[in-house]
Amino acid sequence: MRFRSGRHFLQIPGPTNVPERILIAMGRATIDHRGPEFAEITLGISKGLQQIFKTRDPIVIYPSSGTGAWEAALVNTLSPGDRILMFETGHFATLWSTIAQRFGLEVVFIPGDWRRGVDPAAVEVTLKEDKRKEIKAVAVVHNETSTGVTSRVSEIRKSIDRAAHPALLLVDTISSLGSIDYRHDEWGVDVTVACSQKGLMLPPGLGFNAVSQKAQAAAKKAGLPRSYWDWEHHLDLLSSGFFPYTPATNLLYGLREAIQMLQEVGLEEVFARHDRHAEATRRAVRAWGLELQCAHPEEYSSSLTAVRVPEGYDSNELRKIILQHFNLSLGAGLGKVRGVVFRIGHLGDLNDLMLLGTLCGVEIGLSLAKFPSTKGGVTAAMDFLTAENKIKG
Amino acid sequence: MRFRSGRHFLQIPGPTNVPERILIAMGRATIDHRGPEFAEITLGISKGLQQIFKTRDPIVIYPSSGTGAWEAALVNTLSPGDRILMFETGHFATLWSTIAQRFGLEVVFIPGDWRRGVDPAAVEVTLKEDKRKEIKAVAVVHNETSTGVTSRVSEIRKSIDRAAHPALLLVDTISSLGSIDYRHDEWGVDVTVACSQKGLMLPPGLGFNAVSQKAQAAAKKAGLPRSYWDWEHHLDLLSSGFFPYTPATNLLYGLREAIQMLQEVGLEEVFARHDRHAEATRRAVRAWGLELQCAHPEEYSSSLTAVRVPEGYDSNELRKIILQHFNLSLGAGLGKVRGVVFRIGHLGDLNDLMLLGTLCGVEIGLSLAKFPSTKGGVTAAMDFLTAENKIKG
Amino acid sequence: MRFRSGRHFLQIPGPTNVPERILIAMGRATIDHRGPEFAEITLGISKGLQQIFKTRDPIVIYPSSGTGAWEAALVNTLSPGDRILMFETGHFATLWSTIAQRFGLEVVFIPGDWRRGVDPAAVEVTLKEDKRKEIKAVAVVHNETSTGVTSRVSEIRKSIDRAAHPALLLVDTISSLGSIDYRHDEWGVDVTVACSQKGLMLPPGLGFNAVSQKAQAAAKKAGLPRSYWDWEHHLDLLSSGFFPYTPATNLLYGLREAIQMLQEVGLEEVFARHDRHAEATRRAVRAWGLELQCAHPEEYSSSLTAVRVPEGYDSNELRKIILQHFNLSLGAGLGKVRGVVFRIGHLGDLNDLMLLGTLCGVEIGLSLAKFPSTKGGVTAAMDFLTAENKIKG
Amino acid sequence: MRFRSGRHFLQIPGPTNVPERILIAMGRATIDHRGPEFAEITLGISKGLQQIFKTRDPIVIYPSSGTGAWEAALVNTLSPGDRILMFETGHFATLWSTIAQRFGLEVVFIPGDWRRGVDPAAVEVTLKEDKRKEIKAVAVVHNETSTGVTSRVSEIRKSIDRAAHPALLLVDTISSLGSIDYRHDEWGVDVTVACSQKGLMLPPGLGFNAVSQKAQAAAKKAGLPRSYWDWEHHLDLLSSGFFPYTPATNLLYGLREAIQMLQEVGLEEVFARHDRHAEATRRAVRAWGLELQCAHPEEYSSSLTAVRVPEGYDSNELRKIILQHFNLSLGAGLGKVRGVVFRIGHLGDLNDLMLLGTLCGVEIGLSLAKFPSTKGGVTAAMDFLTAENKIKG
Repeated sequence: MRFRSGRHFLQIPGPTNVPERILIAMGRATIDHRGPEFAEITLGISKGLQQIFKTRDPIVIYPSSGTGAWEAALVNTLSPGDRILMFETGHFATLWSTIAQRFGLEVVFIPGDWRRGVDPAAVEVTLKEDKRKEIKAVAVVHNETSTGVTSRVSEIRKSIDRAAHPALLLVDTISSLGSIDYRHDEWGVDVTVACSQKGLMLPPGLGFNAVSQKAQAAAKKAGLPRSYWDWEHHLDLLSSGFFPYTPATNLLYGLREAIQMLQEVGLEEVFARHDRHAEATRRAVRAWGLELQCAHPEEYSSSLTAVRVPEGYDSNELRKIILQHFNLSLGAGLGKVRGVVFRIGHLGDLNDLMLLGTLCGVEIGLSLAKFPSTKGGVTAAMDFLTAENKIKG
Repeated sequence: MRFRSGRHFLQIPGPTNVPERILIAMGRATIDHRGPEFAEITLGISKGLQQIFKTRDPIVIYPSSGTGAWEAALVNTLSPGDRILMFETGHFATLWSTIAQRFGLEVVFIPGDWRRGVDPAAVEVTLKEDKRKEIKAVAVVHNETSTGVTSRVSEIRKSIDRAAHPALLLVDTISSLGSIDYRHDEWGVDVTVACSQKGLMLPPGLGFNAVSQKAQAAAKKAGLPRSYWDWEHHLDLLSSGFFPYTPATNLLYGLREAIQMLQEVGLEEVFARHDRHAEATRRAVRAWGLELQCAHPEEYSSSLTAVRVPEGYDSNELRKIILQHFNLSLGAGLGKVRGVVFRIGHLGDLNDLMLLGTLCGVEIGLSLAKFPSTKGGVTAAMDFLTAENKIKG
Repeated sequence: MRFRSGRHFLQIPGPTNVPERILIAMGRATIDHRGPEFAEITLGISKGLQQIFKTRDPIVIYPSSGTGAWEAALVNTLSPGDRILMFETGHFATLWSTIAQRFGLEVVFIPGDWRRGVDPAAVEVTLKEDKRKEIKAVAVVHNETSTGVTSRVSEIRKSIDRAAHPALLLVDTISSLGSIDYRHDEWGVDVTVACSQKGLMLPPGLGFNAVSQKAQAAAKKAGLPRSYWDWEHHLDLLSSGFFPYTPATNLLYGLREAIQMLQEVGLEEVFARHDRHAEATRRAVRAWGLELQCAHPEEYSSSLTAVRVPEGYDSNELRKIILQHFNLSLGAGLGKVRGVVFRIGHLGDLNDLMLLGTLCGVEIGLSLAKFPSTKGGVTAAMDFLTAENKIKG
Repeated sequence: MRFRSGRHFLQIPGPTNVPERILIAMGRATIDHRGPEFAEITLGISKGLQQIFKTRDPIVIYPSSGTGAWEAALVNTLSPGDRILMFETGHFATLWSTIAQRFGLEVVFIPGDWRRGVDPAAVEVTLKEDKRKEIKAVAVVHNETSTGVTSRVSEIRKSIDRAAHPALLLVDTISSLGSIDYRHDEWGVDVTVACSQKGLMLPPGLGFNAVSQKAQAAAKKAGLPRSYWDWEHHLDLLSSGFFPYTPATNLLYGLREAIQMLQEVGLEEVFARHDRHAEATRRAVRAWGLELQCAHPEEYSSSLTAVRVPEGYDSNELRKIILQHFNLSLGAGLGKVRGVVFRIGHLGDLNDLMLLGTLCGVEIGLSLAKFPSTKGGVTAAMDFLTAENKIKG
């Protein structure tokens, strides 16, 4: 590949820009995954991850993508024919339901328009109607990466509680963990699904399951066949710092560094930054005269913003022109919104000027692609960030 | 961890010493796994891997450990209740059979003493007796990492052919690929299982399945539930250079470099080096008055040498002393040979002086640990390598 | 240092942002600087550098800063008491004259206002007046890093020729080489002084002297004492690929990569990019209502833009606020323009969005610092770059 | 360059094997050398270096080779025509005297046979004879890198004191600092010359001068012209953490890491390791039936061992064969001992097994090259290291 001057702007909603400190940390020589130094590293990671998931529950780490961690959440807790309540909030929620079906689960799939999150009221109604408690799990995508819409997990928890329903709560935090406030313990989540390449700022290759006591108990009875994803051996070895099979050592080096970095900044400041960047982005979008895919302000995502292009235009044309001219990667529209939206990732290792550079690229790109739009997006974002920086002092 | 002067000697039989070129290649920024540059990289990797597996069949790459690739080979080809012929050649062969059992397969497990490979005659006999062709697959570990014993895959192939049996042949090359001659196509293997952290010299985190046409046909009928491991989406996307879910991008950078490095040297020279280092090691072991775990010279492994310690001694004591004094990691005895053997890995990125340094560490370690043994192992290895280097000229 | 999210914007006029490819290349193990592989590397570098300097003359590489390369140019060519014609174009030209004085040279220093380059007419007049040819060298800074003003070297050459004066022409290209068109041979330069950390995109640590035949002849008679900087041993060894003392090996790895990268793009495209970024920056500055330090459009620098702050304001206050809020480093005003200007470096490894992010940081910073200025700088830069990108197609 | 399996053994007496931690530390992005983070780094380095030099005197850091630091020591302290007492202990001491001559110093050069260090008695006699105190400096190479011979600096100090002579004491510790006990303050050294690529384990590119109050006073009167090497601006800025010209930022990152690593281990343990490795090497040399270049046991170097090859044989032939077969670089004989000795570097980042691997390479190499020698060198070294490791427990 011929050299292109300057850094690539990787503003898809994951993998995100991997900070130098993490790339460097991953460059250490691989060591014996059964030796004493390794155990020390793993134990430190376990503790650090718990702070990030806001939990005291153990967290299983897989050499896998997030897709694998989805599968793990299902096969450890459920049996063939079990009912699971899922919600069509977007492309990834749909994919997760497809996995459930492949494993012979009976998916109760609440349809959606891809512009809203899970309706907590619908959860309550559905569970209350499930008199025989056939629904064994409720699976929610906290932040739908295909649409930039979040679901209000704490309210869903309350809905389950109000329905006094014993179903497990499984939550996908793939594009929210480390970017948007998330509380495994406080929200009574049974399995939190996550991965490395988003808010944790790592390259892809690690999947996570944070596992409640209730989920562990369910696993003892769950009848789906499993081996690689099986929690049991992982949990048995967790306190020793070892793994049932060879872990992805160098990614773990990176994870240790990522945890350290998030601790240096503090999670609350990380969340505030994501909120700020998301709002700046939305102001730019509105100034361009474009529409947000997310219909409800209370469900706006702080990780990414999906933007609808004017009718009759193809978002992939825009993305292609922007990549070519500005070395800026934006997320494509997926599934039902293919060609209809493009996605600006503003999660992970980002700062004001990287975001503004990104928005400049989009604004000029809209002009180069001759999409109907008005200028002024960058100015609107700058005005907002000016005010925010004044407040920060 | 306090600094220890000098390089660690990672002489376990994998993960192996990751060469600087690969660590460096992995340090590049993560890019969009759906962009054009990524596709270009993947297509080059696919082609290169085929040369290493010696096949024209497609190769599926998972973000996983080798254990995951084992599971993938089973769940893609078999149905619950299917019979699979497996062989107790050591710890890893036993683990693989356990996975098969977890998925409800009926394992015909030929017992073994962990000092020999698979007996091709036994394969023939067993398959001939299987008049109803209930055995759907024969699963062989090419190089048993726990014992340093290889199985003769080409002869096993002939046995299957002589029995005119339609069973699939599944082969684990986890610690042989890129170290010991292996020929997926010529030997008529249906699924070759491999991973990144051995002969390919990468950190752990990638699993592989090379998949024959026959295996692909079997997959269409195979009834085991699967999603993550499912070959179908992978194979559909293979020619585009993309993956059905986010791949482990930075490990793929490393894989590209590893392939390039193996091509620069040539596989045959790589194999010759492994053979030479294995023979030097065995000569040292004999000079020390210790016994090889592998009972049959024709089944000696060129990847690693498992050495039996004198009766009444614990190999883990020796390993601990050697690690402490010399910053040299050796492989432990696993399962049935725990404490009984230690393993010297001599695969991957190694040269004569690194091997000799390793043998020096073992020789002095035997003395420090007061294990009954004689000196002269290093001298024997040096004599052999002197002669070999004279031949090379 | 606590982690700050996102990349640092290093927009001082050098050291510049070191691209990942170069940092990675520098991470290779140090090798024997007297071995065959090393010689191969050096010979390739020598050839590549000649293309960048646009010369067939040999280029001496020092482990040094650019300051060292300045000194080398003087001590190799001159004798105590020699006259040298120098020009007060700014801070660095002044520093160079100070070095000359320290070595007992008699500096004829043409005063200047730090807003213009060397006047070719003044060169001609001065040399014509030097009937006794006492001036042994004319020393010019091609791009004055403290002011963002270039001098027209080709015209200065013509002035010397018109004066038919035998003085050597010494040119400092520290912040122009690899950024602004420069032609050692065509412009008849005798010694070109350069360093690693600007257009060559490397970390600091290497100094260069490209040396004409005439300069080599002068060196034979030059009476200033010298050893480290002495060209002779360097030139003797150049064709062998070795150095008279231990070179900065890992920086040379980086240099090899930098040359490769510049070749992949092509120098003319590199220059065009610098021109484009400089013009975009100037448009932003004008839109802000601020004044450029460079008074003459034909002397605008494409490497950096020095911007005057409104009277009564301190540019260092602005720089401090911008660094604190946006992790963006700008260049300070030096010497006579301390506090009066700030400098935006737009040389080296840069692209449109990095530049626009930088300009956003300056524009918001002006507001946060409450400097009298108008908005619209970013918009003006975007308009210009939109038009430029339309032309590129 | 075609890939060669396994790590290169860089056993020349510098540059030494750069540990991964340092290479990694150097891979960080270059930052503004006039910004606050940079100052913090430099101040930490200054303090750490003082511990390594065992001094409270300031230490000037140059972007240069060690050769440059030699020159700096001379030009800052002396005036044209000054007498300096130097000693022909080997190639590097001779080179240093050549530099002195180039700067018009009058070198009183005590001849030597390249097998012994400086004779403290000769120092005393010479200085006592210098009634008019015309000798302004005594320059000693602590560890002569070309011969593996050390000079006893503390006794030389006493000789100067006994002669009650005011000459400055300049000491080259290029291949001893961080490897062999050295005490700038206790031994009353005025200028200690050092560089980065030996015991400090860095790539080449940094030179050092530790400068006593007496040397600083001398500098005020010293008449040699200087600018780059001038201590004054360096010392003025030292407490601010800045440099008078652009420093070699990324090498300073590495230096910070190197200091940290040496502190983790402790200097005394570092010295003990070097002593142990040197003794093991000498035992191997004797067992081979070869002769040490160093004639006096009390002057044995712990950094390197120069070995004489049998008469009629060319050490470069041996080195070439060893490099080709074993990817092991040994030091050549330089100057008067060209072809007569080869040098084994055992300084810097080394451990027992790396040393033994090296000795294995030499032992087999002697056989491949058909040099008259006996086997058993490795065995002798192993015996010694076995005993030493028993003592360490």
